[in-house]
Amino acid sequence: MSSVIVRNVAKYLPETVKNREEMRTHFASVGAQIDGLFDVGGRENHPYIQDYREETSVTMATKACEALLEKEGLTLEDVQGFFFVSDAPEYTVPSNAITIVNALGAGNDGAVKFVMDLNQNCTGLLSSFDMVSAYMKTRKDLKRCVLVSVFNSTHISHKENPATYGFLTDGSSALLLEKIDQKGKGILDSDTLIGSDGWELMSFPSAGYSKVFKEETSLRERTLRWDVGPAGWIPDKYMEVLPGLLERNGLAELDVDYFICSQFHEGLVKRTCELMESTMDKWLFVSRSYGYAGNASPGFAFEEGLRSGKFTEGKTIVWFSFGAGYTLSALLYRF
Amino acid sequence: MSSVIVRNVAKYLPETVKNREEMRTHFASVGAQIDGLFDVGGRENHPYIQDYREETSVTMATKACEALLEKEGLTLEDVQGFFFVSDAPEYTVPSNAITIVNALGAGNDGAVKFVMDLNQNCTGLLSSFDMVSAYMKTRKDLKRCVLVSVFNSTHISHKENPATYGFLTDGSSALLLEKIDQKGKGILDSDTLIGSDGWELMSFPSAGYSKVFKEETSLRERTLRWDVGPAGWIPDKYMEVLPGLLERNGLAELDVDYFICSQFHEGLVKRTCELMESTMDKWLFVSRSYGYAGNASPGFAFEEGLRSGKFTEGKTIVWFSFGAGYTLSALLYRF
Repeated sequence: MSSVIVRNVAKYLPETVKNREEMRTHFASVGAQIDGLFDVGGRENHPYIQDYREETSVTMATKACEALLEKEGLTLEDVQGFFFVSDAPEYTVPSNAITIVNALGAGNDGAVKFVMDLNQNCTGLLSSFDMVSAYMKTRKDLKRCVLVSVFNSTHISHKENPATYGFLTDGSSALLLEKIDQKGKGILDSDTLIGSDGWELMSFPSAGYSKVFKEETSLRERTLRWDVGPAGWIPDKYMEVLPGLLERNGLAELDVDYFICSQFHEGLVKRTCELMESTMDKWLFVSRSYGYAGNASPGFAFEEGLRSGKFTEGKTIVWFSFGAGYTLSALLYRF
Repeated sequence: MSSVIVRNVAKYLPETVKNREEMRTHFASVGAQIDGLFDVGGRENHPYIQDYREETSVTMATKACEALLEKEGLTLEDVQGFFFVSDAPEYTVPSNAITIVNALGAGNDGAVKFVMDLNQNCTGLLSSFDMVSAYMKTRKDLKRCVLVSVFNSTHISHKENPATYGFLTDGSSALLLEKIDQKGKGILDSDTLIGSDGWELMSFPSAGYSKVFKEETSLRERTLRWDVGPAGWIPDKYMEVLPGLLERNGLAELDVDYFICSQFHEGLVKRTCELMESTMDKWLFVSRSYGYAGNASPGFAFEEGLRSGKFTEGKTIVWFSFGAGYTLSALLYRF
């Protein structure tokens, strides 16, 4: 039996970082106050691309992958599979994964045999990791794969809306996945939940891509619809999944070393921690430092766990998130 | 050991079908002759959506799924996973899979626990089936899944270009995947190949999504770039994969009952058949009847194999295709 582990993680964040003061000034100009929201949600630094003509989902993801390969002293020749996860793809033809392979290899595809683009919104990285992990185990030739996740909020957010421009930022995280001849490591189990009522309240582009190029479609309809209400019900959804996931693996909260909840909102993390009868020292939250780059953010938190020395051999974590739709994805992972 | 099999397949084709004569008239008006192209490539009927305001990738895929469930006498309650494959998604937020689940269930998500959107262009259905098959085997709760593939050429093609509007059509195919307690069925093995040189010669939107809403981006750049040359080299790429895939499974051409090659171009199918030292009676090609709806077309051919009684218990097929990027995907499948 083999396991698929996260060998390393790297991230890319745009150099332009707007701090609390700059965001306060920006939103004051449109009559919005953001301090209460930022205090509860957990925001200080907001990385954004400087120029949409220079930075895209593809360029950000490429930089995260370059950083990842450099950390491990590898080149594209050492990677057999390449998976791109985003709800802000730069292309639909070809796959973004192909364009990144090309950028990394300078036209030399080396050993890469498989590419795929995936999208499950803010839970995309976690559910894709689960799928890719299963796939790597069935394909002998996929020993090392890159799973890169990226979000381009600048393309999607409304500048006057604190819930989008204030809460969503840009960036990419890249995971190096490796298949090892050892059982009981990597993803031990997973669970998910979905719900589709009211999906249209958060949709992009709200008119649908087939209408965005048409003259009759208003500029507003070409972009993001964000009419969702308060998110206070989300921790209850987590409770429909997390206790059961632990229990069926013979585990309880005490057996879990760390939790990585969705990085969207610190208040929801605290509430989930309470419901799980846990303590916040076991819960990672990094969006004050790095912003919230959607599906890429679970990777930022995982990297922080590695960097800080928390994630050592044998440690058990529960890594979970929540996304548009809705989707809920939870992984039980062992180092 | 379990296997994941294709229990059934259904398709949706738009009601508006342009025949050879109508296409000839259309292209004559822009100075292009299409008969030679259609004879060699294998085209007669061209199904297109009637009105882009009424039909989209989501509505077409929903109809294919409805037909699939009806064929099997099932409802959404009987399906645990839902996978959407397309390079013409209608939304990126939320996943298109979520919107189809909603349409099928009238707001009642029933038993569906997992959704994912995937894109690998014209090989998307095959490679997604391979990934989903592996995933279903690791997740106890995913016993029956729908894998729906769709292409909206109307959104992408240039009306004056015989290679796009003349060769690409609209439609959707849906596969019902089922996990059974029996080994040696379903996908026995798979192989893939990619190449990324010159990916930008076939790209959509050619300017990248992050620029399509900007005034400085020309209408042409907002749509498809199709500057690829002749496709005569593709059969040689198949030969880098197919013989090896058979050989490592102890099989030769004689052991394969049927081949489903890419449905893009009949001439390339014939050439591949020759290179494989096979005979055309074992090769399925359905694009004269149904057009070529990109990633959905492998599903059309598979359905034809089922419908015609060719695909019976114990039969072995090789199902493969080629897509933008490029990507090449080949499955060895047993009934």
